[in-house]
Amino acid sequence: MMTALQTEAHPDGVGIVQRQYLTWTEALPLESGQRLGPLTIAFETYGRLNQARSNAILLLHALSGDAHAAGRHSPADRKPGWWDSMVGPGRPFDTSRYFVICSNVIGGCMGSTGPASRDPRTGQPYGARFPVVTIGDMVRAQTRLIDALGIEQLLAVAGGSMGGFQALEWATAYPGRVGGALLLATSARSAAQTIAWNSIGRRAIMSDPRWRGGDYYGHEPPSDGLAVARMIGHVTYLSEISLEEKFGRRLQGAREPAFSLEREFAIESYLDYQGASFNARFDANSYLYITKAMDYWDLPARYGSLEAAMARVQARTLLISFTSDWLYPTAESRAIADALTRQGRPVEHVELPSTAGHDAFLVDEAAQRPIITAFLDELATTLL
Amino acid sequence: MMTALQTEAHPDGVGIVQRQYLTWTEALPLESGQRLGPLTIAFETYGRLNQARSNAILLLHALSGDAHAAGRHSPADRKPGWWDSMVGPGRPFDTSRYFVICSNVIGGCMGSTGPASRDPRTGQPYGARFPVVTIGDMVRAQTRLIDALGIEQLLAVAGGSMGGFQALEWATAYPGRVGGALLLATSARSAAQTIAWNSIGRRAIMSDPRWRGGDYYGHEPPSDGLAVARMIGHVTYLSEISLEEKFGRRLQGAREPAFSLEREFAIESYLDYQGASFNARFDANSYLYITKAMDYWDLPARYGSLEAAMARVQARTLLISFTSDWLYPTAESRAIADALTRQGRPVEHVELPSTAGHDAFLVDEAAQRPIITAFLDELATTLL
Repeated sequence: MMTALQTEAHPDGVGIVQRQYLTWTEALPLESGQRLGPLTIAFETYGRLNQARSNAILLLHALSGDAHAAGRHSPADRKPGWWDSMVGPGRPFDTSRYFVICSNVIGGCMGSTGPASRDPRTGQPYGARFPVVTIGDMVRAQTRLIDALGIEQLLAVAGGSMGGFQALEWATAYPGRVGGALLLATSARSAAQTIAWNSIGRRAIMSDPRWRGGDYYGHEPPSDGLAVARMIGHVTYLSEISLEEKFGRRLQGAREPAFSLEREFAIESYLDYQGASFNARFDANSYLYITKAMDYWDLPARYGSLEAAMARVQARTLLISFTSDWLYPTAESRAIADALTRQGRPVEHVELPSTAGHDAFLVDEAAQRPIITAFLDELATTLL
Repeated sequence: MMTALQTEAHPDGVGIVQRQYLTWTEALPLESGQRLGPLTIAFETYGRLNQARSNAILLLHALSGDAHAAGRHSPADRKPGWWDSMVGPGRPFDTSRYFVICSNVIGGCMGSTGPASRDPRTGQPYGARFPVVTIGDMVRAQTRLIDALGIEQLLAVAGGSMGGFQALEWATAYPGRVGGALLLATSARSAAQTIAWNSIGRRAIMSDPRWRGGDYYGHEPPSDGLAVARMIGHVTYLSEISLEEKFGRRLQGAREPAFSLEREFAIESYLDYQGASFNARFDANSYLYITKAMDYWDLPARYGSLEAAMARVQARTLLISFTSDWLYPTAESRAIADALTRQGRPVEHVELPSTAGHDAFLVDEAAQRPIITAFLDELATTLL
């Protein structure tokens, strides 16, 4: 175990990193017609921007992610950033060659402006008065960050799940600013089933009496509701096979059933732990806003069809999907790849065999490493 | 619509039926070692028991079902029993030939002894002091009813989902008493994913402050928790295809997104309606107890292996599974059929193409009718 930890840490990884912030007093216009300001974006960078400002890669995080993609904030940190194994010298997002950026989405709770931020109209946290944001709004906010960093064109954008939504948004809304798009386990629209799961999670949060209409800051948060929402999420991130392999019908710390209503199976303890640890790091209101942004995600509707949307893409595109992912099934990636191909756009789609379900994009790293490295190599050859 | 209703109603169906009750003062020994008494079983019967007492078919209901399988309790009833289209003169469970019985499971809330019943020790409702029951306990209670009706051998037992668990329990625990077993969309054990969904539903109910440790009778019930549990269930009963076909990304009563946290997609309204209507007819504590009984369901563990369990079966078995059912995938039925075949037992497994998901066993009636009719015909030829 220690060996593995040491391999992940400095000097092999990006080492100690710092979260940075940029704030704009000018409000950001939102898709709803509302405006959000002042606007703060929390971000981290790894590696160095080259003189031509052509080697920047923007990483885009999923529902529960944040700007902390790699390294540690202090040597005492137990865990590195969420995509650490992929970011660093010699890793696919090779910080000896690329300038890697990751920012927290607006509506989030990890430093960027979100429902826990101070509403300038009241001086109090926004709560449920925070405006509903969309994937388009998240990416429009990111363009301010990229502008501020003096970057005209990103070498690549990359993300899985909701991170893939944002990468697709970049590639279609700002086609001239994206050299390559790396889309993992994602989709061009949220399906009815995704909306259903998100909606049930929101219902669990909003019916927790401690939600208090969103104004729970300074009080106990709606931790039961958020736990239920997260537990639902976790089952959708795994596959039936992986649940059987990891947990099966094993009892947690017992050989015989307790004949009680309390949790006793290992899968129940796992879910309970996931619910509790998520509460320790995530704000329930952000869960409401970010899942709502996901539900609104519908690129074909925006441009009339998936074909029309993909016709806008100028980037080279790499899609990776996973056989056991039932939340964003591989067919969704295939549909995007097929539409790009019909539009004559350079695209590669790799379907990786996996039992890990949707989580595969984060946990099946070994299989993705050579594919992502080769894709970025080719981009770098052309664009650096 | 009126034509369809008239076809279902008397004289084509079983007409007006009455719920009946039997009560035993002698306690029922339970798998946990506890005892449950007095014991009441609510049941209904359709058709007539023949002189040889050889034409009885026991229908077994799923999680949210009850003893009211067919007909109407009064002419004003809006809906007939849950399996009405399959029960009646000329229907597969042909009441001109068979004596059809259906009872409410113990732990339920539709007339049989359950957590809302009076605990003789306290004079108050059991609440969470109700003993945990298993599928084996439910079926052992049913043997009392079948004994009381003077029936030695059932022509057949039939059920889908948790009803299939009970049918399998009958066929393995009381092999000499079952002529045929009809198993729809079911499994010999609850998989980790099933336990996960059930456990999250229980967590939602038990963390609703109105649950009050189970003692909410006479107060407002934990309707938010039960709604969330039911909404989760409903998504697992449908398929991704059926959700797309029925709801897709359609907004409910609007053309443009409202940019609000409230529900606005049609799928959200549907789930909300399901949650509310379930609250109107179901007791949250029964949901806890019945899902727990499902989680404990593990026939291979009881007898050492699926083979050993199936070696006990003397009944002819018909399994029907549905291609889009991901809660009880068709592979589970195939495993049961294969094990029976290897044991030299007469078994037929029909996998029906369907987009309806797990719900197919209740809604795809047309495809099942001829198969079930033929199966029962053959049983009747041998056993009547």
